[in-house]
Amino acid sequence: MVDSEFKLDEQLIQIQAALDEEHIQEAVDLVLGLHPADRAVVFNQLDDEDQGAILAQLDNAAMADLFEELPDREALEAAETMPTERLADVLDEMEPDEAADLLGDLPREQANQALAQMDDPSEVIPLLGYPDETAGGLMTTSYIALRRQTSAEGAIDFLRHFSPDDEIPYYFYVIDKNEHLIGVVGLRDLVISEPNTIMESIMNPEVIRVDADIDQEAVARMMARYDLAAIPVVDESERLLGVITHDDIVDVLEDEATEDIYRLARVTDADLQPDSEISAQLRGRLPWLLLSTFAALLAAWVISRFENLIAQVALLAAFQSVVAGLGGNAVSQNMAMVVRSVALGRITTRQMWRILARQILVGLLQGITIGLIVGIGVYLWVGNAFLALVLGLALVGNMIVAGIVGTVVPLGLQALGQDPALASSVLVTAATDSLGFLIFLSLAAYFLPYLK
Amino acid sequence: MVDSEFKLDEQLIQIQAALDEEHIQEAVDLVLGLHPADRAVVFNQLDDEDQGAILAQLDNAAMADLFEELPDREALEAAETMPTERLADVLDEMEPDEAADLLGDLPREQANQALAQMDDPSEVIPLLGYPDETAGGLMTTSYIALRRQTSAEGAIDFLRHFSPDDEIPYYFYVIDKNEHLIGVVGLRDLVISEPNTIMESIMNPEVIRVDADIDQEAVARMMARYDLAAIPVVDESERLLGVITHDDIVDVLEDEATEDIYRLARVTDADLQPDSEISAQLRGRLPWLLLSTFAALLAAWVISRFENLIAQVALLAAFQSVVAGLGGNAVSQNMAMVVRSVALGRITTRQMWRILARQILVGLLQGITIGLIVGIGVYLWVGNAFLALVLGLALVGNMIVAGIVGTVVPLGLQALGQDPALASSVLVTAATDSLGFLIFLSLAAYFLPYLK
Repeated sequence: MVDSEFKLDEQLIQIQAALDEEHIQEAVDLVLGLHPADRAVVFNQLDDEDQGAILAQLDNAAMADLFEELPDREALEAAETMPTERLADVLDEMEPDEAADLLGDLPREQANQALAQMDDPSEVIPLLGYPDETAGGLMTTSYIALRRQTSAEGAIDFLRHFSPDDEIPYYFYVIDKNEHLIGVVGLRDLVISEPNTIMESIMNPEVIRVDADIDQEAVARMMARYDLAAIPVVDESERLLGVITHDDIVDVLEDEATEDIYRLARVTDADLQPDSEISAQLRGRLPWLLLSTFAALLAAWVISRFENLIAQVALLAAFQSVVAGLGGNAVSQNMAMVVRSVALGRITTRQMWRILARQILVGLLQGITIGLIVGIGVYLWVGNAFLALVLGLALVGNMIVAGIVGTVVPLGLQALGQDPALASSVLVTAATDSLGFLIFLSLAAYFLPYLK
Repeated sequence: MVDSEFKLDEQLIQIQAALDEEHIQEAVDLVLGLHPADRAVVFNQLDDEDQGAILAQLDNAAMADLFEELPDREALEAAETMPTERLADVLDEMEPDEAADLLGDLPREQANQALAQMDDPSEVIPLLGYPDETAGGLMTTSYIALRRQTSAEGAIDFLRHFSPDDEIPYYFYVIDKNEHLIGVVGLRDLVISEPNTIMESIMNPEVIRVDADIDQEAVARMMARYDLAAIPVVDESERLLGVITHDDIVDVLEDEATEDIYRLARVTDADLQPDSEISAQLRGRLPWLLLSTFAALLAAWVISRFENLIAQVALLAAFQSVVAGLGGNAVSQNMAMVVRSVALGRITTRQMWRILARQILVGLLQGITIGLIVGIGVYLWVGNAFLALVLGLALVGNMIVAGIVGTVVPLGLQALGQDPALASSVLVTAATDSLGFLIFLSLAAYFLPYLK
């Protein structure tokens, strides 16, 4: 039984101990005793050498199971080093959609050789033409399609002979002689029908379906919205091409959420983990940090225009950061709300004016609250009421700026068909910082006689 | 058919037009022509008055469908204003788990009255005792449990008489005379069995199950990991209590991702949207902004210690923000990766040392790259090689600080059983900012003779 506490630490310790003592077969047996999904988790935690030792002992079916569960990058690493013949055998055992994904990731030459040596590439080949991130890239060709005259008894017979693998069909699809999708029959409806009932009489002709070329995130949202266990994929002439099942959409939604979290934090590679290779981390993190550098230098240039002012009242340098920092926090709040709400399809650019009005008002109220607190605090600390006033007013101003740019930039990018998360982070911070310094130091310059 | 483009704009415009002309029945018919999930989306975009006009025309079943699909808060608002008798009728029509959620959200007195007036509260009552965010709060009592001696034919007969609602059972659960869960039978295995086969001979006795009191996120991760369409929920003595289906876990995972995104951006209320009520926004945003204020004042205090230095070299004020700002960006990258990887169960606190080593190295390399660029840029701009050196060194130092606190704080909070996202944001920024200023200004003080 799978532990409901969902911990694999003990198993991992045992497996690691067996490997350390070079009891490879014992380690392999322990791994094979786990649920296939757990095998991948444990495997992932082993070092390259131990992984190799275990891989060498797995049969084709077990390796296929493992490849299906491993993150794409890990599966690719393992596959790249395998002899072509072995790889072809493993691909034959994999689900067609997973095999196609792996083939798509492999170097072209190795992929072609492996494909040529597969016993039955017929289910995989049609899947190779679709980009990974589309409905076509997500679907499997392992489904049951019936003709409208098929009887319930005949359909159940089909089910009996359908490969008894993990992906259980929840629905049967009804197609006409041109393979056009014309209806769907739930397994339950089939089961409770008289044996000689034909599909046409029990099918639901209103099938929620997707085109092969739509983005996987749209598919996932659609399945989530309509609570579907599976959704059929069709081409432009409504021919049935494949089926996407509920387990795929969870992965898609998780990946999309990770992507948004990472982009808001200026990490471009959503596969990165804290312990990823250093080179991968630099590739995924440095480019946007460099862009931020230019934004920071722009803000520095704004401040440098006030060099003379700061030389006279050096304490301003201490408080300029309060304004920009809190403005930055407020704008992060805005961005997170806008980006996530757009991702979840909760708001559209049509609502922009209403949202903008609210965000300006929230900015004003947050600015007044924070401005009062900081103003009073600074007055008690430094004893200069004008400095407190300047700081309070600058905070109000910068919070309003945060409300405006934090709404307009991501929604504007969205309206232009761009991803609202990534570019906004840099643009919005640059604007909030620079304008924050500008507002504060301009006000300070205006009140200079009272600050000295 | 549902439009695969997934747009409801046209329908919304038609419905709004009908409402504006007070053709209420036409608007209601248009709404009822939509998929129940789409009805909720459209309904959500209408103003309160129009919502009320439509609600008044819906029958109990349609209102139950709508309540099931609406966000909890919206459903609650509508339910609160309904006469108790009507509410009880609608609750009778709802899925037991959804009805229990709504009852749990209602004021206690109204909930008790509605429950007392329901025709059949028996499926709902057992669900009321479980907190919303646990497996018990997520499960439904609408499932099929069979005894081990039940025949396949008998099981299919059960299915025939099972209420033909939306939630299709994917599995049948086998229980003993004490209602203990002892096995699971897939619908497919049932269908392809001989009619007189008994459950005991085809059931899988290794059932992946969860306890009623475990957190909903753990359930969702488990179902996602094992690709389950449904998971049974048991009490401490292994008695079957209910079932959680795949559609529920998508919502849970989306909510948890939203929560993480919001917490990283210091928004505490994951239900907030950019157009939420102003008061709700202030409640969800101001408290953490206030904490950030104290962090910002701490950083300001650090800077104020160098007031004399800044008075001599005012340009330092321009560049201190570059150091703190870029350190802040690097630490956001760290935090996003750590928080998300923890949420997805990809890393554990056991890996802390390895992660820490990598993050320090990444910080060093990012610091050297950014430090060189900024140093050269500032040398070309200002012409002072020592200022360039101070800035470059401070960037290296602050990036390393970012790597350390961005890893240690969230993983430390996680190890203490706390949520790594929320508290870390403030703690980590406070540390990076203050230390960034300290490193830069201390270095500047050391090199002061060469900066003037």
